[in-house]
Parts: sequence; C-alpha cells; structure tokens
Amino acid sequence: MTTAAVFGTGSWGTAFAAVMADSGTDVRMWGRRPEVVAAINAGRNDEYLPELALSSRISATSDPEEAAAGADIVVLAVPSQTLRDNLGTWGSALPGNADVVSLMKGVELGTTKRMSEVIADAGGVDPQRVVVVSGPNLAREIAVRQPAASVVASSNAGAAQRVADACAAPYFRPYTGPDVIGTEIAGATKNVIALAVGMAEGLGMGDNSKASIITRGLAETTRLGCALGGEAVTFAGLAGVGDLIATCMSPLSRNHSFGVRLGQGMTVDEVIAVTKQTAEGVKSCTSILDLARHHGVDVPIIEQVDAMITEGKAAQDVVDALLSRPRKAETG
Amino acid sequence: MTTAAVFGTGSWGTAFAAVMADSGTDVRMWGRRPEVVAAINAGRNDEYLPELALSSRISATSDPEEAAAGADIVVLAVPSQTLRDNLGTWGSALPGNADVVSLMKGVELGTTKRMSEVIADAGGVDPQRVVVVSGPNLAREIAVRQPAASVVASSNAGAAQRVADACAAPYFRPYTGPDVIGTEIAGATKNVIALAVGMAEGLGMGDNSKASIITRGLAETTRLGCALGGEAVTFAGLAGVGDLIATCMSPLSRNHSFGVRLGQGMTVDEVIAVTKQTAEGVKSCTSILDLARHHGVDVPIIEQVDAMITEGKAAQDVVDALLSRPRKAETG
Repeated sequence: MTTAAVFGTGSWGTAFAAVMADSGTDVRMWGRRPEVVAAINAGRNDEYLPELALSSRISATSDPEEAAAGADIVVLAVPSQTLRDNLGTWGSALPGNADVVSLMKGVELGTTKRMSEVIADAGGVDPQRVVVVSGPNLAREIAVRQPAASVVASSNAGAAQRVADACAAPYFRPYTGPDVIGTEIAGATKNVIALAVGMAEGLGMGDNSKASIITRGLAETTRLGCALGGEAVTFAGLAGVGDLIATCMSPLSRNHSFGVRLGQGMTVDEVIAVTKQTAEGVKSCTSILDLARHHGVDVPIIEQVDAMITEGKAAQDVVDALLSRPRKAETG
Repeated sequence: MTTAAVFGTGSWGTAFAAVMADSGTDVRMWGRRPEVVAAINAGRNDEYLPELALSSRISATSDPEEAAAGADIVVLAVPSQTLRDNLGTWGSALPGNADVVSLMKGVELGTTKRMSEVIADAGGVDPQRVVVVSGPNLAREIAVRQPAASVVASSNAGAAQRVADACAAPYFRPYTGPDVIGTEIAGATKNVIALAVGMAEGLGMGDNSKASIITRGLAETTRLGCALGGEAVTFAGLAGVGDLIATCMSPLSRNHSFGVRLGQGMTVDEVIAVTKQTAEGVKSCTSILDLARHHGVDVPIIEQVDAMITEGKAAQDVVDALLSRPRKAETG
C-alpha cells in the first residue's frame, strides 16, 4: 500500500489527492489554514474544489511532520513563489527516501530557478527523487472524473514509474518520461501564452487568431526549453501542446480569463481587484523573460505580455506588435 | 500586377480570393453553377460566404478558359474527391507557366494520393509549380478579416514566395516552407482528429479530454507524415497543430460539429440527413487509414473514427477503446 503526503490544499493539490485516492493510494494533506484542514477532514474542500466529495482515503492536518511521516511519495502543490519559504519551514519533515512530486508551474522570481531546482536547493532533496507531473489537467474537470492524461517526468525512470502507478486511475492516464526541464518550462510558459490568447479573445479575435498565437507560442517556448536542455518532443506532447491547448481554450483557466479581461481594456490592478486573485502567468512572466534573455532566446509573445504586465502596454498595441513582425519562413 | 484564377466557389475558395484581392491581386473565379457565378459578380457569394462583400477586383465565370487565361497563379479549391474529374474536364485550360495552389484537404479514395499528386497526375502540372496553402484558416473568420496565419509550402521556394506575396494582407500572414507532404497530410488528417474531438465533446467531455485527444492525434498524424516523407516540424507549426487547434475547438468547423452530433448518439446517415452535408473527415478517413496501414503506421484515433464511420461503432465505445490502451512512456 502506497502512502502519499500532499503539501498544499489548493484546487490542483486537492484534485490530485483525489486521483491518487482513486488509484488506491492513502493520502494525507497538509494545509496552513485550520479551516481548510477541517473542511477536508469533513469530506469537502469547500473553498478550493467544492464540487468534489473527498474519499475517506484522504485526511488533512496542519502539522507538516504528521503529514509527511512514513510517506512513500510527497507531493508539493503550494504557490510557486512561496515554495522556498515553505521548504525552509517544513522541508526537514520530508522523509529522506520518498519520491518528491512537483505539481507547481512557475519560475522563481530573482533566481529564475525551476521548481525542481528550488526543491533540490531549499529542500535538500536529491534530484534523482524529484518527479514533475504536468499536462492538460484543469482541476475542476478532474474533480468530476473527466478523462485526462498527464506526463510524469523524472531523470530517474523508477521514480517516475512509482508515481505513475500511484496516480493511475480509470479517468487519469499518466505517461512517464525523462524530460524534467522541458516539462517544467512547458508548464510555466503556457500560463504566459494563455494570457496572450486571452487578450486576443478579449479584443474580439476568433479561433484562427487564437490558434496562431498558441502555435507561435509553442514555437518560442520550445526554443526556450531546448536552450535550457529540455527536449522538443516534450513540447509536442501532453505537457507542452496538450496543456497549452487546455489552458488557452478553457474558460476554467485563470490565466486565460485574466488575459480576456486585459484584452477588454482593464489594467492588471483592475483585474486583480475584480477577481480578488492574480494568475500564475502574471507572477512568472518577468522571470521567464529573464531566463530567455539570459540564454539569448527570442520570445516575442512572452516579451509583449511582460510589457503589458509590467509597463501597462495596451492589449491592442501588443497584438499589433505581434502581427507587424516581418514575414518570413515558418521555421527560419 | 499579379492575376489569379480561383477554381471553386465554396467558402474557403471565396475567402482566399478575397484575401488575394486585399493583397492587390486581381482574381477571376470559376464556378460550375451559373447562379453562384452571378451572385459573385453581383458582389456577394450568398450561398457560401454571405458575410463578405466582395472586392471589385473579383469577378467570376462558368468558362474555365476565360477564368484561367493569363493567370499567374491558379488556385484549386474544389471538393477533394472531385478534383481528378474536374481536372479531366478543364485541366488543359491551366496556363503552363502558372503556379498552381491547392487549398484542398483530403486524400483521394482508392488511390490514397495527396491533392498535389492528383494535380500532377491528372492536371499534368509540374510538381515544381505546385504550392499548398494550409493553416488555421476558418473561412468565416477570414471573411471578416480576423488576423490569421498560414503556411505556403512548395518544393520550389520561388513559387512559394510568389504565392505568399500574392496573398499577404494586413490580417493574413503567409509563412513560406518547403514541406508539401507534411503540410498536406496535416491538413487532411486534422479533419479526422476533429471528428474524434467533436465526439468527445458530444459525449460531454471537457477541455482536458479534448486537449489530450488533440495531442495524441498530433502524435499519430506526425508519425504518419514522417513515414510518408514529411517533416515533424511542419506538424508542430501552423499547418499542423495550428490548424488542428482551430478545427478542433471551433464551432465553425464542419468536421468538429459533425463529430459532436455523432457523440450525441446520431448515426452518420442521421447527421448527413440533418445537416444536409457531409464533412471532409468522413470522406477521407478510410483513405487515410489505408495510407497508414500501407506504411505500417499505428494511428489508433484514426482507426477508431473509421470504425465509427464505416461500421457504426458507438462513440462511447470509441472513446473507451482509446482510454483503455495500455499505459506507457509518452514517446515510446
């Protein structure tokens, strides 16, 4: 019997806990807020994933030691930019022999480190035990057991297989793979591209335009991933184009919806004020752009989104800038 | 001044004529039916693209010789399965020095030939003069001048450039490329994948499921394209994933809508009876499956769609078959 600890009680952490429970894995969740912990123990995470009745295999606690004790697999699902601080607080509780799974999609501000790097750095975890799960996995659809597939990537094939076995459910198909870098860069960058696609939609553009931005976004994020040591084939797969499509087309995606409001003419602050939350792409786009510049990779869409987020460039000017680039060969 | 002839007065032929006119190209269209020709000459193709007021640069005729005379570029936009017969009737009218553009997306039944091969075969056109245009180009969005991009592929770079120059408009960005085979296979297969995605939607599935089918569909169509001599990079671009996304997500796509009705439980004959038309993917899937089998390429999604179309397999059984395949590495 596999036991897993899930650190983080947001919608994706909770949905993934439910997937593991449906796979026959016992799950203990750790949450900072007692009221969320109590809700989970009462059978439903009302605040983050109210549609899901939680299995009795899932319990929750505010004590990191209690959550982590004896876990074969530790799943990290806290907000990206809080990961380092969180690991500083409870990283020592993680069992030394557990596989450590990252569900997080971001690049750390300042250091431009990927989440697996932060886990190794700040959590003292052997990179051979780090596993990244990423794919077209809108939490609310998984909560209602809609079929989905995902990539489970690790430089250690055994770790990837153990995690895949612990989360395979009739409606959830994990595919193992070796490319941690590509999987993480794909996951982080798709949020920024989703902002651009949302903006185009907010400006009234249709599916041709959105599909073109997704495709060109895939090209630039693939270039970035390869420059960092990832593999192009990852970007052509579930963690790349699969997640990009789901995130860019779904009204359930926070990044996409945030972009739509920007396209409709709201400022970043106005969107945050109205929605009472920000979006991962808003938080990560500057660090992703830093990473691209540091490696000399041309990322025109990410650059325009960053100009919009950090300098308040108007959505129409962003789209005009993208459409007025010189024509050329597609793969020049 | 470039002059183009467009053979075919369907929605995409008409929209592409309008793009060329907006690019400063004079266009003569050929249509079989006198009432459609008269409508175009009166300034609007009411039956196929009523939203578009046609430029005075566009005229139409029922006389193939008159349409083709002096054209620098001949655009072919007739139904795929009628191309050979059409070329038998008026192929000799095509000027010997014109570039010949295919807008058609299909594979010929019986011969399993791509449209460019049929053009060379039945039209006696030098393959060096054949150009293929394909991308996320929903005709109704282009008609209202929504931004879109497309691939203009030819084994002859000069021909691709001439065609790109004749169709570049402020809202239409042509990207040149060398891969005719990949571009054609991507265009033909995406209709079949769109049927599968529509079916999933008709069965009530969400964006994770649809994105997963698109991604796995991209993988199998890329395998097929590469086996036939195309390039993987084409499938990662506008003619591949770009067109696939637009076709699979848009309610404007005939293949997608056809699939939705199949997913809702209608038979192929019932859908045709209700919509009064079939869809390209329905007509082409058997020849594409033949092509894949002939080259020993595994195409599970296309195979399931064909079983549904030709044997009446139920949509739920098709989806179950796809979801119950053994788990494995993503790029195994």
